Amino acid sequence: MELEEDYVIFGERLAEASGKIIRETFNKNRVVQYKDDGSPVTSADKDAETVMRDMIMVEYPNHGILGEENKSWQIGSECLWVLDPIDGTKNFASGFYNFGTLIALVIGGRFALGIINQPVLNQCWVGVAGRGTLFNGDLTETRECSELGEAWMCSTTPNMFRGSKENSYKKLSSIVKHSIFGSDCIGYAMLSCGQIDIVCEAQLKPWDFAAHIPIIEGSGGIITDWSGKKLTLESSGEVLAAGTEELHKQAVLALA
Amino acid sequence: MELEEDYVIFGERLAEASGKIIRETFNKNRVVQYKDDGSPVTSADKDAETVMRDMIMVEYPNHGILGEENKSWQIGSECLWVLDPIDGTKNFASGFYNFGTLIALVIGGRFALGIINQPVLNQCWVGVAGRGTLFNGDLTETRECSELGEAWMCSTTPNMFRGSKENSYKKLSSIVKHSIFGSDCIGYAMLSCGQIDIVCEAQLKPWDFAAHIPIIEGSGGIITDWSGKKLTLESSGEVLAAGTEELHKQAVLALA
Repeated sequence: MELEEDYVIFGERLAEASGKIIRETFNKNRVVQYKDDGSPVTSADKDAETVMRDMIMVEYPNHGILGEENKSWQIGSECLWVLDPIDGTKNFASGFYNFGTLIALVIGGRFALGIINQPVLNQCWVGVAGRGTLFNGDLTETRECSELGEAWMCSTTPNMFRGSKENSYKKLSSIVKHSIFGSDCIGYAMLSCGQIDIVCEAQLKPWDFAAHIPIIEGSGGIITDWSGKKLTLESSGEVLAAGTEELHKQAVLALA
Repeated sequence: MELEEDYVIFGERLAEASGKIIRETFNKNRVVQYKDDGSPVTSADKDAETVMRDMIMVEYPNHGILGEENKSWQIGSECLWVLDPIDGTKNFASGFYNFGTLIALVIGGRFALGIINQPVLNQCWVGVAGRGTLFNGDLTETRECSELGEAWMCSTTPNMFRGSKENSYKKLSSIVKHSIFGSDCIGYAMLSCGQIDIVCEAQLKPWDFAAHIPIIEGSGGIITDWSGKKLTLESSGEVLAAGTEELHKQAVLALA
């Protein structure tokens, strides 16, 4: 199924509207509240999601919405918008730049559109299934790295790996050239631009990874769960992205 | 001793000259080499340090230089410039923004001037002993947080804590509200701006922390080694910075 161009343009409008709110709040006096799971949330998270939800409900009343900060809406719909208004809230609230808005459109279970928008830096990555990924309008490409021992890997925090996942992660981490932390969604953006070779993460929710699928695939990379299986909205939250097939295979083996 | 205003202006000229080189290289095709200790270095690191060394040798031929990328020069001098052309090379080489140039002037063993310059974002922090720290010309101030359980802490990587230091760090980390990684020098900059409450790090060299001392102190914060002792060029590399005295005391106890 070819993605309607209207959806891409609308996704970019969502990024623009949420970005305006986030830009106005970044590095200002922040008020942090806490969700039931103990994770922080700011007024910018809530307001940015609200503005996107309102726009979707007006423009596409038959579509569903799965967002980080609000109740699900019509999630059985053929077309489902998956939203994370600020991925990297801790970085955002601390003045670091590794955060962004994630917008994905899932059509009939297929990850059709993905957007990572860093509104303070005016950086936007747009991935559409079957097309090349664009970064601020230019095609992106993952870089050639076929040896795990040469690979630069990033993850948001080592604290996301628990139990047996921690051992698997440590094995992979002991083989790669460098492990970098604090990346949040910008790690996937840098992978698509050929600046990083691997992103390995765990405990992610659909809104944390849905947008990355068309972005990584459209830049020549591979993104799956840790066992190499395609990600779905029901995946358990372990995500492995790599710039080349060789690297991805080696990483799956190391995590096994 | 009052710091000569000329030194501050000259330090800013060093930041400007090194920043030009770094801006031209960021997110371009990078060539990474490796030093004897296995840490990466780019041509931007080397060129940015060279331009600063050349300027110092011309302007202040009697001063000494201690830099990350080149041999020491007249380090017994009363006035010693301590330079890290790119603190956060891994972030820089991967397209993340948490990196900066560190410039410090030590006069008779006293940390007299410190500069953190993020040249891509045009952000510059200037600390002078006995004065208020300036961020792009505006006074900075650490924020009020007197309870470890409420504190947001950052560190560059958990891999910098080894042996008994790892246990101490884990104890502190288990008490604070949040631990964020990947911060490099920008963590100290955010502490001075009241965006973060604690920075806890280990294995730092003088060029990794010298600039931070006047910056943190000039914004109302405290920076010492893990036992609460003042940092010197001979300190063993464990650094603890906090926004308030109460918080610093509690952190020293947790690390003991």
